[in-house]
Order: sequence, then structure tokens, then C-alpha cells
Amino acid sequence: MSSLDPDIAGLLKRDADGLVPAVVQQHDTGEVLMVGWMDDEALHRTLTTGRATYWSRSRSEYWVKGETSGNRQWVRSVRLDCDGDTLLLAVDQEGPACHTGDRTCFDARELPVSQP
Amino acid sequence: MSSLDPDIAGLLKRDADGLVPAVVQQHDTGEVLMVGWMDDEALHRTLTTGRATYWSRSRSEYWVKGETSGNRQWVRSVRLDCDGDTLLLAVDQEGPACHTGDRTCFDARELPVSQP
Repeated sequence: MSSLDPDIAGLLKRDADGLVPAVVQQHDTGEVLMVGWMDDEALHRTLTTGRATYWSRSRSEYWVKGETSGNRQWVRSVRLDCDGDTLLLAVDQEGPACHTGDRTCFDARELPVSQP
Repeated sequence: MSSLDPDIAGLLKRDADGLVPAVVQQHDTGEVLMVGWMDDEALHRTLTTGRATYWSRSRSEYWVKGETSGNRQWVRSVRLDCDGDTLLLAVDQEGPACHTGDRTCFDARELPVSQP
């Protein structure tokens, strides 16, 4: 049982695992840093602590971004999309957001696109 | 069987439904417009046409953004994240990205965050 505000919980449309993706954006530059996953409890912790907290699908545990690496995310705002199935966090990211050491998780691989 | 380049297909880590989330960002302003979902074929169509194409989880069909509404997305770049399980599209969005008429799908609902 999560402690998430029932009014907020009532807005969420979770996937089969009870999760929603959370897109994380640097608040001032607009860079998309990463995408994490939250269940109700991770969202509750994020909203009440101001520190971005996710559910790890690979390790099946909560993780507070930066708790190990020191690369913390201070949450400026959290928005829910029109369908209630995606979150957008504006954060202030300390250091690199990616575990590879890159600033964002999208820095390394660009795919080729044909222009119409 | 999708027509997606096997080298790209080999990089993707799909969910149980064969999908990855695609975060869509306006290329010049950095606004996060929406999140859609792609399977291999939707990604193939996006990369080869330069028009953002998604898999609709609710309707179980492909949709080209703007085909009905006219609010088309012209794809400038597609990036794959470090884990291979999320895409980031930079697009030029014509008109509102959200079916509600809002510019982005995240305009309407902000959740309260406690600042540490």
C-alpha cells in the first residue's frame, strides 16, 4: 500500500507492472537527461522529498538518483500528461545524469533518419 | 517481421509487448511534447520517412502523428539511450502536439512537490 495522495493516485494510468515512465529534463537547459520508472510509492517519495526516486525494473528496488553516485536530481516540478500515463520531471541535475558518465543517457547513439 | 535495419534492431531492448517509449521534444525550444510508443516497424517507418510514426497501445494500430489532425511531426533526429530501451526524437511540431489542443501533453497538470 503506497502513501501516495489518493487524489493523485486516482489520476494515474499504470502499466501491467504498476509503473509509469518518468521523463527527466534539466529545468533550465531543456536537455532530456534520462527516463526512469515510478510506481505510486516512488512518486510519493519524489513529491514529498524533492529528490527523484525511481523503481528499478532490473533490480526490483527503489533507488534515489545520486544516492550512490552523488549525481543527485533536485526536483523542481512534476507534471502528469493528458492520459495520466507519463510523468515529466524538471530537475536540477548534479554532474552527469547517465551511469556511463555522459551528461545525458541519449548522448551516445544517434540513429540515421531520412529527411522527407 | 519488421523491415528495421538488423543492426538497429539488435540494439533495442523492448518491453513485454515489444515496445519502447519515445520521448518527443521540439528541436529548437526543448519542450517535451509527448511520449509515444514504438515497435520495430514504427521505428523503421519513422527513420525512413522522417515522419513520426507510433504504435497505439489503445487502438492496436500504427499511427502517423498529424495524419488525422494535421499536427504533423517532422523528425530532425532520433537517439537511443544507453540501455537501448528508450528513444528521444527531436521534431519540428506543427500546431499543438496534444489531442486536447494544448501545445504539449504536459501543460495541464502539475503535481505539488515539497522542496527539500
